[in-house]
Amino acid sequence: MVSRKMSKKVKVGIVGGTGYTGVELLRLLAHHPEAEIVAITSRSEDGKSVTELFPNLRGHLDLAFSQPDLKTLSLCDVVYFATPNGTAMKMVPELLAAGTRVIDLAADFRLQDEKEWQQWYGMEHACPDLLKEAVYGLPEINREQIKQAKLIANPGCYPTAVQLGFLPLLEANVIEPDQLIADTKSGVSGAGRGANVATLLAEASESMKAYNVAGHRHWPEIRQGLNGMATADVGLTFVPHLTPMIRGIHATLYAPLKDENADLQQLFEQRYQSEPFVDVMPAGSHPETRSVKGANHCRIAVHVPPSGNTVVVLSVIDNLVKGAAGQAVQNMNIMFNLNEAAGLEAIGLVP
Amino acid sequence: MVSRKMSKKVKVGIVGGTGYTGVELLRLLAHHPEAEIVAITSRSEDGKSVTELFPNLRGHLDLAFSQPDLKTLSLCDVVYFATPNGTAMKMVPELLAAGTRVIDLAADFRLQDEKEWQQWYGMEHACPDLLKEAVYGLPEINREQIKQAKLIANPGCYPTAVQLGFLPLLEANVIEPDQLIADTKSGVSGAGRGANVATLLAEASESMKAYNVAGHRHWPEIRQGLNGMATADVGLTFVPHLTPMIRGIHATLYAPLKDENADLQQLFEQRYQSEPFVDVMPAGSHPETRSVKGANHCRIAVHVPPSGNTVVVLSVIDNLVKGAAGQAVQNMNIMFNLNEAAGLEAIGLVP
Amino acid sequence: MVSRKMSKKVKVGIVGGTGYTGVELLRLLAHHPEAEIVAITSRSEDGKSVTELFPNLRGHLDLAFSQPDLKTLSLCDVVYFATPNGTAMKMVPELLAAGTRVIDLAADFRLQDEKEWQQWYGMEHACPDLLKEAVYGLPEINREQIKQAKLIANPGCYPTAVQLGFLPLLEANVIEPDQLIADTKSGVSGAGRGANVATLLAEASESMKAYNVAGHRHWPEIRQGLNGMATADVGLTFVPHLTPMIRGIHATLYAPLKDENADLQQLFEQRYQSEPFVDVMPAGSHPETRSVKGANHCRIAVHVPPSGNTVVVLSVIDNLVKGAAGQAVQNMNIMFNLNEAAGLEAIGLVP
Amino acid sequence: MVSRKMSKKVKVGIVGGTGYTGVELLRLLAHHPEAEIVAITSRSEDGKSVTELFPNLRGHLDLAFSQPDLKTLSLCDVVYFATPNGTAMKMVPELLAAGTRVIDLAADFRLQDEKEWQQWYGMEHACPDLLKEAVYGLPEINREQIKQAKLIANPGCYPTAVQLGFLPLLEANVIEPDQLIADTKSGVSGAGRGANVATLLAEASESMKAYNVAGHRHWPEIRQGLNGMATADVGLTFVPHLTPMIRGIHATLYAPLKDENADLQQLFEQRYQSEPFVDVMPAGSHPETRSVKGANHCRIAVHVPPSGNTVVVLSVIDNLVKGAAGQAVQNMNIMFNLNEAAGLEAIGLVP
Repeated sequence: MVSRKMSKKVKVGIVGGTGYTGVELLRLLAHHPEAEIVAITSRSEDGKSVTELFPNLRGHLDLAFSQPDLKTLSLCDVVYFATPNGTAMKMVPELLAAGTRVIDLAADFRLQDEKEWQQWYGMEHACPDLLKEAVYGLPEINREQIKQAKLIANPGCYPTAVQLGFLPLLEANVIEPDQLIADTKSGVSGAGRGANVATLLAEASESMKAYNVAGHRHWPEIRQGLNGMATADVGLTFVPHLTPMIRGIHATLYAPLKDENADLQQLFEQRYQSEPFVDVMPAGSHPETRSVKGANHCRIAVHVPPSGNTVVVLSVIDNLVKGAAGQAVQNMNIMFNLNEAAGLEAIGLVP
Repeated sequence: MVSRKMSKKVKVGIVGGTGYTGVELLRLLAHHPEAEIVAITSRSEDGKSVTELFPNLRGHLDLAFSQPDLKTLSLCDVVYFATPNGTAMKMVPELLAAGTRVIDLAADFRLQDEKEWQQWYGMEHACPDLLKEAVYGLPEINREQIKQAKLIANPGCYPTAVQLGFLPLLEANVIEPDQLIADTKSGVSGAGRGANVATLLAEASESMKAYNVAGHRHWPEIRQGLNGMATADVGLTFVPHLTPMIRGIHATLYAPLKDENADLQQLFEQRYQSEPFVDVMPAGSHPETRSVKGANHCRIAVHVPPSGNTVVVLSVIDNLVKGAAGQAVQNMNIMFNLNEAAGLEAIGLVP
Repeated sequence: MVSRKMSKKVKVGIVGGTGYTGVELLRLLAHHPEAEIVAITSRSEDGKSVTELFPNLRGHLDLAFSQPDLKTLSLCDVVYFATPNGTAMKMVPELLAAGTRVIDLAADFRLQDEKEWQQWYGMEHACPDLLKEAVYGLPEINREQIKQAKLIANPGCYPTAVQLGFLPLLEANVIEPDQLIADTKSGVSGAGRGANVATLLAEASESMKAYNVAGHRHWPEIRQGLNGMATADVGLTFVPHLTPMIRGIHATLYAPLKDENADLQQLFEQRYQSEPFVDVMPAGSHPETRSVKGANHCRIAVHVPPSGNTVVVLSVIDNLVKGAAGQAVQNMNIMFNLNEAAGLEAIGLVP
Repeated sequence: MVSRKMSKKVKVGIVGGTGYTGVELLRLLAHHPEAEIVAITSRSEDGKSVTELFPNLRGHLDLAFSQPDLKTLSLCDVVYFATPNGTAMKMVPELLAAGTRVIDLAADFRLQDEKEWQQWYGMEHACPDLLKEAVYGLPEINREQIKQAKLIANPGCYPTAVQLGFLPLLEANVIEPDQLIADTKSGVSGAGRGANVATLLAEASESMKAYNVAGHRHWPEIRQGLNGMATADVGLTFVPHLTPMIRGIHATLYAPLKDENADLQQLFEQRYQSEPFVDVMPAGSHPETRSVKGANHCRIAVHVPPSGNTVVVLSVIDNLVKGAAGQAVQNMNIMFNLNEAAGLEAIGLVP
């Protein structure tokens, strides 16, 4: 007798398919060898063919947007939420009850502390009891829990790049955890597909700026993650910047070294030697975001500039892939015991 | 007994793998299910790992550049030349004699007339007798000849977009062939990976310009192709423009209509209904180059503006894929009786 | 006794100062030696400092947005309307009655035929009798009328580039006027500062597309202008394209030559020899849009490609300067008998 | 009797006028009310009109490149060197001897320590005795010495943005000087106008990367400057990044606060209240590089993120203006007792 996974494809639903994480899920799943998209919802585009909105999918996907409907969605093996914050939490309990597993690409289940969540997201949480049950979907840390998870909180884009960069250093306790700095630069697609003056080409091109220095929602998420790795309380300064490109995050991380003789290159290589999607670059490298454009890899280099006792980590991802939809598919692959790289073999589009 | 094609992968050699068409071949062939890259040559990078030059290939390809060597190359089933003009013609005769098939991505075999070739390329042709034997590798016209071809002249980027746009109109004889205009816009990767002031980001970004209005090498190539489709002599004005983007060609084509009542939408749809890589968009569409970014498709729309008797065709490709490496792989697939879309399933990277 | 012009600065009002043509007027007028901005209006930003919205003006302009108020505006010598179409026509009659001169940067007075205007702009015209009184503000054609004008219809951006390119050819009657083609490429600022998905950086960058091929509002405006230059009815095919840059228009113009021996270079040089803002480039040139970035110049080159009897004109402007605010200031300078180049001396920002 | 400054313009020579700092000097000086360019040299372009290379200057400057010639140059009041490192030092002694003042935009005189200079620039210094005599041309620190200077070492682009950002904090001794971090992002024009694969649009666009983390020549220059401001030895980690835009530097600076109750906003405002080209933004601001595009301003904001004891300074300049040619003109204005802002009134080009 053939097992379920061997005999048929994973049935996938996507709620909120018109934003950038939604269309990226479509791009990745359209040719996924073990998954099949059976429903994609959008209140505003109900009935419209997906390819009318995204002509790049013509010939690859024959599907129309539909109203989000619990009955249809609960027939899926897994449902992705690519919705604004606060949407998934209203539907997740019923889906879980129906035996459908959920991967939320928004932030509804990323923080474990209810009060902190409410403070940062400015609303009551609809199902706070699920905050502790949800598994934070960073496979490099939580792979075992992901396998069994019913509900995945898919990490934010900055948190993915920053946590993967600090992880080996904090686990090995070679840096002072109370003076961490994450200077991060993101392409404009991170701001989403909504109509918005600030991200018009004529506004955001040929310019660079920091934003939300006084506080960004990814800060508590990163701090929660780093605290889980560290042996002492983490102090983190986090400054995001808007960069004139479509895709890509470049995180430049700084920390005071405890031990200047530690072999950091080896530390990183060993920590990530079995990871399919973290690539530790050779010593002295400067990873470019374009090397992961459209790809699910995180590329990392670690430096100790000659003068100082400060370690510098360079960590790059594609914010829409490893920083969102790709990592979500990676999580699905782990949850359903598929090849972890299925659907994620794309090579960074260079040039 | 299993036939050769079924039993093993096509052995591929690439001469000149350090330019943009070279690295694009690597990206497409690295995961090709029926082909295997066995040699990639570069005089200047001999011995260097391919991934040192192109880190996006890390984890996907384990190969080093080697000196171009006829003995090694002649063990391949097919050799791609991604070299400057004038290089392939010096090695092709020996490779053909050894039974190796050749796909030249440069211009050495694109013009059938020796004198015209010499005039436009400014050198003697090393094997003019092969000019007539070479098959012009535009599958939408020459699929049958490509199947048997020993030597493929892979079309230029502009010629691909322009010829596919004019093809249905000229074949059906619904336009005046003597007043054709091709206003074409190309991303900067079309100028190649050579160090060059004019294509620096600080020069070519935030600007638009025409170039080579007095004469461009793709003009005789396009004219030769269009003449093959038309019932009368073709007159063509061809103006290329440099556009501040990396990839993409947008060809805007103009021609006087002979018959204003012709159903051009149907004409295009019928002509290309069986073509796997030409997508005729719905009436009224405006294809975007990004819809084919990284993909092998040509997307076409046909318009007749209300006022006039002029037909306007909009034709977009990725200059490095359908305009170069992707079309070369498509030609290989046809030559070796593989699935024509093998290795070419990528969806345009949007956003 | 000192004349009015010598003794004091021209008092300027700007209605609708929050869009791109508005802020460009501010940039140009802030240091204008003979003009003084006394009021700038915006319903939505009433009371806010101009520099809060546009920090680039900090230190250059100390002014706050106010409600559009006829009393204040009628104290100005001249009022610019940088408003959406249909706004100026509601206020212009009263301003003119009060002796204030008006320069409308929108389209309310660009078409002389009321019915045609209503057809293209989809509304009733509020003061159709002013359509014939308004002077079309293209100084290279109408300088004498502009001097006396009470009401200027400032030309559209595409119409400026296209008309200046065809003008010498049509006036000299050396082309067939019934088969004109204008293939035009614009930077994204031409679409305005409104929140809009299609012009987000993540949508419009790294891509090229045509738009409105079935009909664009600048088509009747251009045709009206060209008909005024030509001896026979003009037939025009006009295709605009969205280009991934902020500023700049590149118009590529095609026409069948009547006389292949005409000295077109000389024709252009003579026609524009006294024009301060039209620069005929040397024969063989390819003007770049960046050469006029931030500047009021139109740079033009004329070519006859070897093969054909088709003339190709390349005409570039900055859509926000010569295509909008700069030309409006040029018109003001002419109207008030100032140095025509006052406030417009900026050199194109290269690189 | 009229004094020299009132009666005639400052005679200016430019050595090395074909790079980006050279053409930017031309743009700024072409309309300078008190200066006149009398010679511009280029070995490679000798005899060519400046406007042939830079068509944006057509109509603004009528000058041809000439061979660098000491006789001609020594007739100038001031000579700018916009040359590669190591060129100016060979000509400066003779020019100074002839009474001509010199502003070197390269690095020949930026470091006061000869050994350090030789170590970082890899060559012998031709006139080490002048290292101490040269005045470092940062007007906000050295205005008085600049007035009398014969030889100005014009600061580097990163050093300008970083030093202006740290200056008030170090002078007031409110930060720990031994753990400073400068995370800096530069547009590609900072890499110069030389033909170079790494800065091709197709390489540098749509990507972000750090570079020279192991050591950059601006690091000793910044450290020297900061040490001059601080009461204790400065420890500085400096990481530059290449950003996909033409112009602009965004420096994000981090330092541990000694006194969390210090009023940093007031500190910055007071320090720079008389400075014509440093604009302290309102509390909570995020300056954009485009706000200074083409302008000589440095815009600065100071933040203390809620969680920490780390101060964050955001400092933006145009690398070619305040970071090079504009600051050089500002220095000239000070040296010749002109209006410090003469020729530098341009407003940042937005959008």
